[in-house]
Amino acid sequence: MINRLAVIGVGLIGGSLSLALKKAGVVGEVIGYSRTESVREEALELGVIDIAASNIAEAVKDADMIFLAVPMAAMASVLAEVTEAISDDAIITDGGSAKGQLVDIAREVLGDKFSQFVPGHPIAGTEKSGPSAAFATLYQDHRVVLTPVVETNTDALETVRKMWQQTGAEVFDMEVKHHDVVLAATSHLPHVLAFNLVGMLAERDDCDEVLRYAAGGFKDFSRIASSDAVMWRDICLSNSDAILGLIQQYQQGLTELENAIKNQDGETLKTVFERAKQARDTRFK
Amino acid sequence: MINRLAVIGVGLIGGSLSLALKKAGVVGEVIGYSRTESVREEALELGVIDIAASNIAEAVKDADMIFLAVPMAAMASVLAEVTEAISDDAIITDGGSAKGQLVDIAREVLGDKFSQFVPGHPIAGTEKSGPSAAFATLYQDHRVVLTPVVETNTDALETVRKMWQQTGAEVFDMEVKHHDVVLAATSHLPHVLAFNLVGMLAERDDCDEVLRYAAGGFKDFSRIASSDAVMWRDICLSNSDAILGLIQQYQQGLTELENAIKNQDGETLKTVFERAKQARDTRFK
Repeated sequence: MINRLAVIGVGLIGGSLSLALKKAGVVGEVIGYSRTESVREEALELGVIDIAASNIAEAVKDADMIFLAVPMAAMASVLAEVTEAISDDAIITDGGSAKGQLVDIAREVLGDKFSQFVPGHPIAGTEKSGPSAAFATLYQDHRVVLTPVVETNTDALETVRKMWQQTGAEVFDMEVKHHDVVLAATSHLPHVLAFNLVGMLAERDDCDEVLRYAAGGFKDFSRIASSDAVMWRDICLSNSDAILGLIQQYQQGLTELENAIKNQDGETLKTVFERAKQARDTRFK
Repeated sequence: MINRLAVIGVGLIGGSLSLALKKAGVVGEVIGYSRTESVREEALELGVIDIAASNIAEAVKDADMIFLAVPMAAMASVLAEVTEAISDDAIITDGGSAKGQLVDIAREVLGDKFSQFVPGHPIAGTEKSGPSAAFATLYQDHRVVLTPVVETNTDALETVRKMWQQTGAEVFDMEVKHHDVVLAATSHLPHVLAFNLVGMLAERDDCDEVLRYAAGGFKDFSRIASSDAVMWRDICLSNSDAILGLIQQYQQGLTELENAIKNQDGETLKTVFERAKQARDTRFK
């Protein structure tokens, strides 16, 4: 049971954790903070949080669990404010999509309290954002990855694990670097690819007409290009090494396909397409 | 009213046209042909067609409307067989996803009967294929593009237009080259991109684990990589010029993003992502 959960960033990710724990009846009260006053008021009005705090120190000072659901770029300064205001046994966890850089920052900023920090990443979301996008079942049957490091307090880790399980999520532990590569491959790179495609079409003079003839496949493919631009900028900057490695590999593959089309080399195209189709059909559920 | 519709290729596209026209009560009978005997038997058993023909000549000889729904690579030989067996006033149309090369082939193969050919492209489909994938409402509220050329017989064009309208589709005319670029941008390129991503992930030793952590965004993004490999090989070969131009442009964009990530240039990332998000949210319905 969490007595007081502090949610820093009361949008889709933070708001949905609050709603899920409230629904499960495993949290006493939820105090929320957003940098934008109207957002925290909205979260309060929608019942996403019980109390709106007007600053981070106020939000975290009596909390036993603190969940950071702010953009990656804000994590360093938020952690600095958090660490000054919390008790020694408060647990801090987060929902950031890339973990390597954040763990380094947290180690530096949190100092002695770093052991109370459990780096986490709920793999769930929609292309929507803000308190009104939050819902109690967002994490149900989704995976949450925790990336504890050698310093991480075991009790804190297990408490965070239990919290996520109570939202209906499956919780897995993963090594920090491995997490960042896996997520770059399945989420960060696809977002970059979709943003690049839609951005390229948006620059065409005949963009409106082009998009008018796009069918369902394009709609599905490009949905993630509707995700929050600032959030994805931050993820790209934060997980740059893993993403860059995969972009390079992707460019190589694309150049091979380009050459195959240029040389009317149907055999190569068929081989690559079949390998992809088979993986999609059999290995991805 | 079509007296006898001949459908060459009784899979998702051909079968769904048959079912739609039957449902609308605007076709006397449908005779279908597939190269594979078990496929035409399946189409017959499922009621997708009324008669199964054992060869193309038999399928088309008494038909007043002939719909070609075969892979792009098979179009030339199918057209050659069709033209020898049909009456002078039979109308031929097709469902091919690229039109330029096909129009050139049809002009050569059909000779005097080329004016009876109405090049068409129903922009609808799923990642499934075969007669069992066909359904009567596939084209409802979808767009069908016709790309008549200067030689195209006006009555034939209007008859084909009416046929598609009777399936519930919206029918538009487009210039051949323009069609090929628009479709390359919204369909062919996205398929190449998705095949390339999933194919690249399939080659990783940790592929299964990677895919296990993929969330909904990846699922949507990669769905089109489950499309038929041979069909997409043929489309890439047939619409190579338009696709190559766009791949090049895409690579340039991706290299810009790569450099922005490398240089931690958040401003560029934000600008590109925001442009894409805005286009996706406001210009694509």
